[in-house]
Amino acid sequence: MAFSPLVDELVESLRVLPGVGQKTAQRMAFHLLERARSGGSRLGDALGRAMDGVRRCDRCQNFADTDVCGICENPERNTGVLCVVESPSDLLAIEQAGDYRAGYFVLMGHLSPIDGIGPEQIGIDRLVHRVRDEGVTELILATNPTVEGEATAYYIADRLADNNVLITRLAHGIPVGGELGYVDGFTLTHAFRGRKPLAG
Amino acid sequence: MAFSPLVDELVESLRVLPGVGQKTAQRMAFHLLERARSGGSRLGDALGRAMDGVRRCDRCQNFADTDVCGICENPERNTGVLCVVESPSDLLAIEQAGDYRAGYFVLMGHLSPIDGIGPEQIGIDRLVHRVRDEGVTELILATNPTVEGEATAYYIADRLADNNVLITRLAHGIPVGGELGYVDGFTLTHAFRGRKPLAG
Repeated sequence: MAFSPLVDELVESLRVLPGVGQKTAQRMAFHLLERARSGGSRLGDALGRAMDGVRRCDRCQNFADTDVCGICENPERNTGVLCVVESPSDLLAIEQAGDYRAGYFVLMGHLSPIDGIGPEQIGIDRLVHRVRDEGVTELILATNPTVEGEATAYYIADRLADNNVLITRLAHGIPVGGELGYVDGFTLTHAFRGRKPLAG
Repeated sequence: MAFSPLVDELVESLRVLPGVGQKTAQRMAFHLLERARSGGSRLGDALGRAMDGVRRCDRCQNFADTDVCGICENPERNTGVLCVVESPSDLLAIEQAGDYRAGYFVLMGHLSPIDGIGPEQIGIDRLVHRVRDEGVTELILATNPTVEGEATAYYIADRLADNNVLITRLAHGIPVGGELGYVDGFTLTHAFRGRKPLAG
């Protein structure tokens, strides 16, 4: 490399970011050094603090700075309903939709025996205890509609089959604003099966 | 936001990177927190060190950790030839081509009166002094073939017109391996004007 050790180290370190290869890392490093030194320093500090300080919430496993996250501590949320999601970005999407005002459980993954990810790794025992101990009345399984997500949902439903809890899954169907001609066959089949009488 | 202050701050700080919006910043933050904590800490340290420690080389204005950069200090390089480039990434491209073994001068920009960037801001006085004082025999103007790059090249050539230095510009023409059908008209015109007799 033609640059100083500090620049080389910065370019190499930037490659830890997802989707960032050698060329992009160079472009980012030069941009920061040429035009955004204070932003770069601020990013460095934020990274240091977040990598050291962010832990998992004791109740829902979501990212948190404290033992229990802000959503779990919020007294205005319905504690009788839990929504199970695979990742913090799924939780964020639901929060941004703005309609759901109850609790979450963040698996941080899905069952994947081939990768050595079993029920313990994603905290299913903790979820089962929580449902039993806290009088949860409805468990919404909002794992992704992939093979692994479906398998994880079925496993959780099976583990809680003997408990007095309503287990639901998000509806599949045509996206609002979508055009029928662009919707795939599986989604259309689900939309037909899930059809409802039109309220008169 | 649904997350902790540390995560929010990390997402916000990541947006200083070029081409990174809210969604990408979230994806990067979650990736680091879920799967690459040590890489994230290393990036934080590298950013801190680079933003504080990287300065400009006193001779060529390229990024350097020390007063004078490694290229300027290299005794094997021809000091009689200087190549003027707009940015460190241009320098890197020339270094990676591997054929050029002389000095550089990095403008870190180009003349742009509308943005308040005049000759002082890109160090042209320093370049002129260096050409006069160090007995430079050839100055290669490798600024970009844009309106601003051409204007900068002409300005430098004009400032050094009375000095005994050969001023050259990189050849324009058909890229090696390119197909004629895909080459734009300006490039083809330049390639015709710059044609050479075939050595027999």
